[in-house]
Amino acid sequence: MAARLDTGRLEAFSDGVFAIAITLLVLEISVPDDAFDDLVRAIAEQWPSYLAYVTSFLTIGALWLAHHGLFRRSSAADSVVVRLNIVLLMAVSFLPFPTSLVAEALDRGDAETTAVIFYGATLLAVSALFAAMARHIASRDELLQEGARGEVAALSSRLAPSLGFYVAVLVLAVFAPAVAAFGFLAIAVLAIVRT
Amino acid sequence: MAARLDTGRLEAFSDGVFAIAITLLVLEISVPDDAFDDLVRAIAEQWPSYLAYVTSFLTIGALWLAHHGLFRRSSAADSVVVRLNIVLLMAVSFLPFPTSLVAEALDRGDAETTAVIFYGATLLAVSALFAAMARHIASRDELLQEGARGEVAALSSRLAPSLGFYVAVLVLAVFAPAVAAFGFLAIAVLAIVRT
Amino acid sequence: MAARLDTGRLEAFSDGVFAIAITLLVLEISVPDDAFDDLVRAIAEQWPSYLAYVTSFLTIGALWLAHHGLFRRSSAADSVVVRLNIVLLMAVSFLPFPTSLVAEALDRGDAETTAVIFYGATLLAVSALFAAMARHIASRDELLQEGARGEVAALSSRLAPSLGFYVAVLVLAVFAPAVAAFGFLAIAVLAIVRT
Amino acid sequence: MAARLDTGRLEAFSDGVFAIAITLLVLEISVPDDAFDDLVRAIAEQWPSYLAYVTSFLTIGALWLAHHGLFRRSSAADSVVVRLNIVLLMAVSFLPFPTSLVAEALDRGDAETTAVIFYGATLLAVSALFAAMARHIASRDELLQEGARGEVAALSSRLAPSLGFYVAVLVLAVFAPAVAAFGFLAIAVLAIVRT
Repeated sequence: MAARLDTGRLEAFSDGVFAIAITLLVLEISVPDDAFDDLVRAIAEQWPSYLAYVTSFLTIGALWLAHHGLFRRSSAADSVVVRLNIVLLMAVSFLPFPTSLVAEALDRGDAETTAVIFYGATLLAVSALFAAMARHIASRDELLQEGARGEVAALSSRLAPSLGFYVAVLVLAVFAPAVAAFGFLAIAVLAIVRT
Repeated sequence: MAARLDTGRLEAFSDGVFAIAITLLVLEISVPDDAFDDLVRAIAEQWPSYLAYVTSFLTIGALWLAHHGLFRRSSAADSVVVRLNIVLLMAVSFLPFPTSLVAEALDRGDAETTAVIFYGATLLAVSALFAAMARHIASRDELLQEGARGEVAALSSRLAPSLGFYVAVLVLAVFAPAVAAFGFLAIAVLAIVRT
Repeated sequence: MAARLDTGRLEAFSDGVFAIAITLLVLEISVPDDAFDDLVRAIAEQWPSYLAYVTSFLTIGALWLAHHGLFRRSSAADSVVVRLNIVLLMAVSFLPFPTSLVAEALDRGDAETTAVIFYGATLLAVSALFAAMARHIASRDELLQEGARGEVAALSSRLAPSLGFYVAVLVLAVFAPAVAAFGFLAIAVLAIVRT
Repeated sequence: MAARLDTGRLEAFSDGVFAIAITLLVLEISVPDDAFDDLVRAIAEQWPSYLAYVTSFLTIGALWLAHHGLFRRSSAADSVVVRLNIVLLMAVSFLPFPTSLVAEALDRGDAETTAVIFYGATLLAVSALFAAMARHIASRDELLQEGARGEVAALSSRLAPSLGFYVAVLVLAVFAPAVAAFGFLAIAVLAIVRT
């Protein structure tokens, strides 16, 4: 029934979910009620929240750019794409939860490692789902706009190193979670700059 | 006045509500502040939240797909469709509340049964409203695109078993609420796969 | 600079705000943590929340319909329309706050009257802003689509009784706030049916 | 890869983020649970919340208008515009956090100054990012619609005084934070009226 869907409404719906997920992230940032006596310090102490906010925001921003780049070159979506896209959106929408865990756990010893790994695993899942979708589209001529095969293949193959980076930083997180948290930011910045 | 509305803005508005309802679901997931000592366990203990999140997400995702399939074949919306659609959106937007009840009540004995039935009843209401809308559109030639009558009738008749499944799982919920919670997930997965 | 704006992006932006405001309403509904012992009763006791949710939802839904009906007949937006529309959206976005006050105050004696009047005053403000915008558009030929003058004038004049209803129910709220709360629901249902 | 992007999806995505950020602002407004005994007073005492809400709402509203005015005259977005726009959206989405700090800190002595300066600095950052984007577009003929160079340059140069106002009110905030809070409102109203 959904075979060969026009990509217009799929893009609009995805954009809606990206825009909302990206904007909800700020709700996790707050200053405790009893910290208003020394607000300068309280604002400064929220740095893990800012780090998590910027990392998740730029990660979703880069994904939006890549999503746009992919569907601009697609002529239609088959049922695999539609379903993978729903699962991808489910992972993106989930991101505010691990983001808030990282924001709260950084600077807290044990919980730090767990939170950063859980966060990184979610980021890896998002990237892997997007890479699977790009690879599927690249392999079907009937989903591609004329002459876009090369570009989509290039886009698809450029996603592989990203996955490698996530795995590397996840391993790093076991030994140095705070450093790994900045590593995820670096991956996001790199993705924005390279896209 | 709203008689014979163009379906474009109706679809855009519905997509907006679906995208927001789907994305707000994550706000219900959190780890209590005093559980950061053993965060691995605390994250694992949130499984009812993940189950409720995935079920509601996939249910709304399947509805979005079916909604898209229906209005792609409509040429216009009459006042019945516009009003039914508003009530449908009201039920969809309400979903995060029973979702959070299920997430909190699973594993809690008595409240479990109540929460799962309340959740299932909301899912049934959403499905019934959509089925009523599809049936109304299928019965009016002036709302259908040329040659779409058969497809819309097929889509409409395929919704009936869904309603039956919901009723069956609701009955099951009286005896085995946790099993029924997974039953609602199964219906959602099935709807995504079949659509 | 914004003189004679195309109405497309204005409608899209307004739809976004309406869709979000309508969907955020559910966040105000919750069951206290210690009420899970008797969840059936706790769910039933939230009736003021449901009343407030349905009333606000249908009010914004009716406004969306009327907004759609108005701009479908407009050919352009001048700077007055753009500004009035921003103030209108500000009032609509504000609605979740008085909605939550009514939900919490109903059944609480004194606070009830205050909350219902505050809520009704916000609804009146929303309606008055929309009526002012419709009247402005009806009075400018250069903002109207050809031949739409009569329809927009009719739409505009049909808003006057709504304002009267709101004033009447606001007066009623001084003596019988709970009855008035249902009165606001009746106005919303009427608006949906009549639009 | 993103070089020479069509501006349509960029505008739609930006509108989504603006609409959500603007609508989330209301979530910061609430009345403490124990204040329902004297609700009239409790509602009145929330004036700093209303001030912060209206200021942030009108600031984002004015930005939306200017954003619309800018991209209506652009024919394409290069990679600088796409990236600056993502950072701009990140700053806009962040606004609800300093908004809530101002709402809570006004009338609280020391914290007042800090909160108002932090809020104003965020507003200044938003304006500076938008001004940088407008200036970049004004300087590239290949991004401009035919004959739009003059208008975009005018729009761009009109943003400079805004930046000056923000700096002036920020200095004022050191001595009279509450007055400065109203100053930010005045800048927003002025921006709406002048755009």
